[in-house]
Amino acid sequence: MKEKEVVVIGSGPAGYTASIYLSRAMLNPLLFEGFNAGGTVGGQLMTTGLVENFPGFQDGIDGQTLMTQIRRQAINCGVECVTSDILSVKKEGENFILSDGNEEKYSAKSLIIATGSLAKRLDLESEKKFWTKGISACAVCDGGLPIFRNKILAVIGGGDSAIEEAVYLTKFAQKVYLIHRRDELRASKIMQKHLRQNPKIETLLSKIPVEFYGENLLAGIKLKDTKTQEISTLQVSGCFEAIGNVPNTKFFKDLIKLDENGYVIVDENNMTNISGIFAAGDVMSPQYRQAIIAAGNGAKAALACEKWILNK
Amino acid sequence: MKEKEVVVIGSGPAGYTASIYLSRAMLNPLLFEGFNAGGTVGGQLMTTGLVENFPGFQDGIDGQTLMTQIRRQAINCGVECVTSDILSVKKEGENFILSDGNEEKYSAKSLIIATGSLAKRLDLESEKKFWTKGISACAVCDGGLPIFRNKILAVIGGGDSAIEEAVYLTKFAQKVYLIHRRDELRASKIMQKHLRQNPKIETLLSKIPVEFYGENLLAGIKLKDTKTQEISTLQVSGCFEAIGNVPNTKFFKDLIKLDENGYVIVDENNMTNISGIFAAGDVMSPQYRQAIIAAGNGAKAALACEKWILNK
Repeated sequence: MKEKEVVVIGSGPAGYTASIYLSRAMLNPLLFEGFNAGGTVGGQLMTTGLVENFPGFQDGIDGQTLMTQIRRQAINCGVECVTSDILSVKKEGENFILSDGNEEKYSAKSLIIATGSLAKRLDLESEKKFWTKGISACAVCDGGLPIFRNKILAVIGGGDSAIEEAVYLTKFAQKVYLIHRRDELRASKIMQKHLRQNPKIETLLSKIPVEFYGENLLAGIKLKDTKTQEISTLQVSGCFEAIGNVPNTKFFKDLIKLDENGYVIVDENNMTNISGIFAAGDVMSPQYRQAIIAAGNGAKAALACEKWILNK
Repeated sequence: MKEKEVVVIGSGPAGYTASIYLSRAMLNPLLFEGFNAGGTVGGQLMTTGLVENFPGFQDGIDGQTLMTQIRRQAINCGVECVTSDILSVKKEGENFILSDGNEEKYSAKSLIIATGSLAKRLDLESEKKFWTKGISACAVCDGGLPIFRNKILAVIGGGDSAIEEAVYLTKFAQKVYLIHRRDELRASKIMQKHLRQNPKIETLLSKIPVEFYGENLLAGIKLKDTKTQEISTLQVSGCFEAIGNVPNTKFFKDLIKLDENGYVIVDENNMTNISGIFAAGDVMSPQYRQAIIAAGNGAKAALACEKWILNK
């Protein structure tokens, strides 16, 4: 059994930033970076192109480069990184016992959960080819990039965030198609009003994407009509998928309190309902999915955790 | 009268990050960087040495360089920066009217206040010489730097945060003196207990620093006993001033609700009690004075402000 004051789970901006703070406070944190469970080591920035809105990089920075640098910074600060997935967490007395499936178990007095969330994807074979080359899961992150400016774009989805992304994109785009598989949107009345008031948005109902096409960059989408089964093509230079996010909280659902969508509920000091367990980043925040917000939040959780350890 | 959707006031990590987000959302923000009122353009990082805990910089980054890069990034994103201080803000109908003392006035539909706070200083002539060369206002930021490792350090102050800083520094230091001008500490009972339990801390009461000395780096402090007026010297390699922070909210006190210490009170979306006025960074957060937390907070305030403008 390896004993630790604090273990951090998750390798996005929140997890690494928390571990940097904990390590500088001489708490020798162990960071589980994950391997498979939640997606990619390094979090969602690893599948992002140019990041223009992370402060500190005057010309923007590639998502992978940013995460590689944050990871090296954590290691330079003395953080011990383990590239495996936590498969179970349980409370035993005062401590939390963690297992990654290997023989050695880990015991921690406190935990910071920063496992993030995953943007759902359509899971089309052609989607992989154009990911970051016209397809994105975040209008706020990518909408302003040159490849989307003054172009015809599409948003997939029928909820509030789909409309939010479509409205946001009209600031840059020539036109935005909102494409939804059902024959009505499930978005709130107020968001549907924003939609109707925006002359740049055209809504296409009962349509599902069946293929993305193009050369190097996305050039269009083949759509199937769910009622007539007819296939049509729609020329777009960008497609933003807003079909939902899933927090990576599977292994915590019996341990801590989650909201109805599976996100971790925390208090103003980022502590969950279990004393000693903190959370940071997208795993506790469905509303703001931004690297800089997650990073700030990771620092906050670490400082709160330090104080909790001191007062224990 | 110059009319704007949104004006940001303040040039620390919160203000620039907010303006980067607003500008990428095509809201053409105007950013008042300040000139004199709150201290330095660029905020408190401008008077900091190496920053090791801002994620993204694997070997750390100099505070001034970091802020210069964030400022250039804001300008690259199209933010219009004005290097003057806002001297008055008032509400007129739906809008906020701002004046920097010049003839032209500014009208804004929404505001983001990110004017930060100032760490109080002792205001000794010799303090300037050793600032960032042994004197600091933040143990979490600087305590782990090589110049302080295994050295004898001092903390000035008698409140909770002074003890917090002293306890934090014992992780790195050989010994820490806590120096307070009164004959008793005003810190809470629990913090005084932490103090007594820590064998590395020695408390010196009724003492005030009258001079810092050394060659290039700080070598010691001359202390005056407030009862006997006797002068003594204390050899230390570092001195952390924890004598309080003052939020820069002078010009907002008649407009928005502040707490008893002058910090801006905000809701979970960073909005103040006045619809359309948001706040971010140290000006609303006495507890966490960290650049990355302020930056994340600035992004959050900007996203909330965008949504507010959309729903108006």
